[in-house]
Amino acid sequence: MSALDWLDEELQGLAQAGLERTRASTIVQPGPFVDVGGRRLLNLCSNDYLSLASEPVTSVASGSGSSRLVVGDLAVHAELEGAIARWLDVEAVLLFSSGYAANVGVVSALADAESVVISDLLNHASLIDGCRLSRARTVVVPHRALEEVEAALRAAPERRRFVLTDGYFSMDGDTPDLVALRSICDRHGAALVVDEAHALGVWGPEGRGACAAQDVRPDVLMGTLGKSLGSGGAFVAGSRSLGRWLWNRARSFVFSTGLNPAAATAALRALPILQAGERTRTLLGHAILLRDELARAGVVVREGSIGPILPIVLGGEPRLAVEAAGRLREAGLFVQAIRPPTVPRETSRLRVTVQAGHEPDDLRRAAQAIARALHP
Amino acid sequence: MSALDWLDEELQGLAQAGLERTRASTIVQPGPFVDVGGRRLLNLCSNDYLSLASEPVTSVASGSGSSRLVVGDLAVHAELEGAIARWLDVEAVLLFSSGYAANVGVVSALADAESVVISDLLNHASLIDGCRLSRARTVVVPHRALEEVEAALRAAPERRRFVLTDGYFSMDGDTPDLVALRSICDRHGAALVVDEAHALGVWGPEGRGACAAQDVRPDVLMGTLGKSLGSGGAFVAGSRSLGRWLWNRARSFVFSTGLNPAAATAALRALPILQAGERTRTLLGHAILLRDELARAGVVVREGSIGPILPIVLGGEPRLAVEAAGRLREAGLFVQAIRPPTVPRETSRLRVTVQAGHEPDDLRRAAQAIARALHP
Repeated sequence: MSALDWLDEELQGLAQAGLERTRASTIVQPGPFVDVGGRRLLNLCSNDYLSLASEPVTSVASGSGSSRLVVGDLAVHAELEGAIARWLDVEAVLLFSSGYAANVGVVSALADAESVVISDLLNHASLIDGCRLSRARTVVVPHRALEEVEAALRAAPERRRFVLTDGYFSMDGDTPDLVALRSICDRHGAALVVDEAHALGVWGPEGRGACAAQDVRPDVLMGTLGKSLGSGGAFVAGSRSLGRWLWNRARSFVFSTGLNPAAATAALRALPILQAGERTRTLLGHAILLRDELARAGVVVREGSIGPILPIVLGGEPRLAVEAAGRLREAGLFVQAIRPPTVPRETSRLRVTVQAGHEPDDLRRAAQAIARALHP
Repeated sequence: MSALDWLDEELQGLAQAGLERTRASTIVQPGPFVDVGGRRLLNLCSNDYLSLASEPVTSVASGSGSSRLVVGDLAVHAELEGAIARWLDVEAVLLFSSGYAANVGVVSALADAESVVISDLLNHASLIDGCRLSRARTVVVPHRALEEVEAALRAAPERRRFVLTDGYFSMDGDTPDLVALRSICDRHGAALVVDEAHALGVWGPEGRGACAAQDVRPDVLMGTLGKSLGSGGAFVAGSRSLGRWLWNRARSFVFSTGLNPAAATAALRALPILQAGERTRTLLGHAILLRDELARAGVVVREGSIGPILPIVLGGEPRLAVEAAGRLREAGLFVQAIRPPTVPRETSRLRVTVQAGHEPDDLRRAAQAIARALHP
């Protein structure tokens, strides 16, 4: 008898509902192709959009040794923060150990029980957890809604107000109207907080993200090092005061060992490659190619989606998505089924992503294989 | 006018109260000594207890590319998890990107609004945030209290019960009576959840931590890769069912890119060095030496503290600790003042830590310098 015996019953329930995520074979090396169970499969589900994660890296130190506030504030952190600040033209950048930590940390450091947060229904889990931790009153608005955001702000008695949105929704492949959100925020004294995790390296001049693409300056911008930059970790960018405040009050920053120096080193090396733009242009070309080929093969990609994230919503039973992913794997494609709670009920899907490192011919063949797997 | 203008006022308040943490000079490289502002200082505040963080590391990949659940489950993750599982003699180990993520993730995945969590007053911030996120009823008990834990469990109507404690308190340098806590948990059907972040590599056979030192098996054990293992990241260890559950339900795991492969590589290399025990023996010898020398010099180290964490509580105004740290720096020692909210009000302190890589003579000189800095 153990106090955790209830876990077995819960796990059985998950499995019966077709919702247990089991461990697939491990992957030897990330990249445009991956070896899974001894087979080489086209990798169509990574966030390594620019195919930079498979580069080897050497770091002069293996750890930071403590929180940045104590003795873990390394030169490589300052160097990377400076490079990102220049890239995004902001006063201050602060590194976090993951996007989850950045979002949870920044939202709970800024919003408190006397604040209101307006949050898009499909915002990333880490933003939702940040809202919960902050104890702010949270108003969830429909996806990409504008009128509802304005109405919620108009009705809000709270003085400290925040509008939270992903810049490029990772499971839906769409982007909010940031110009409109900026102007709503300005009219109602709200801070615009944008998670650009999936947008950096994909959208905007020099890959500066969805805000830059729409020529909008958010009050707070979150980015990650673990997607287009091919490393791991994340950051928050904004004003000098924001940087000072987070250094003091973002609990996921204060109470964490400084970002691993190897991750910082890899991101520092990847940043100029990203900024050069060539890989982004290739990526966006690949996205258009795969979208065209899928359309021609009769596969419906989620309406409103753009760029390298192609959601194919199957709906209904989650196991439909799992079965389709199984057929794709037999056809040489690695795509994972995305099920609740990652996406809302009834919207289980295949989330197909392209990389700069893919070859056009492989993407053409992939479109055919996807069409066959969905209409077997 | 910006919606975040209030930050400046808040920051001014922090600064006036002597509570703003400002950025010190960055450090080129971790180690027993650090270069700060062009001066070489004895590093007396790192968590790199075994002096392993300054080793260079090379990784075959720079990133994981996605969540472990999608296509970020790399061979190096499985290899490290297997090595830790064998080391700690548990069925399952799951890596997280930081100790903060591990604690927040595991507590909120296990405890829910129908649960009760009994939590030590001085538990780490990440455990506190995990309790908040879980929405469980949380009962905070005095530090290392036993009767209060039992009383809280006896009075609790909730079926799912958890007792949360650090194995080795990072700011206080003491250890709970885990034998007693285990037996209280068993009597009342509660799961014992122990954060061994600062205990691994320090206590127990093969550095397996405070639980192993007291021959106690917790239901859930958290550890970190960023302290004695000299890398970054963290893990949760326990039963096979626990591993399956966290893989599905720990949001900081599910919604995060897999641990950086360079961090996993470094930890995998450090583990056998830690297990060999020689560095731990040196570390504990250094701790005894510094404690003896400080006692002889009339410096009071927090009662009840043991091992490499030596808290020197100054109390009163936080700026007393800041001023003492300044004098130590002039004397060639790098020690940070620890102030609220990291420690309770009126207990601002110097937190002195030793490393295996220190030299006995440096520690003898340090004791003298600390005595002079405290009684100037």
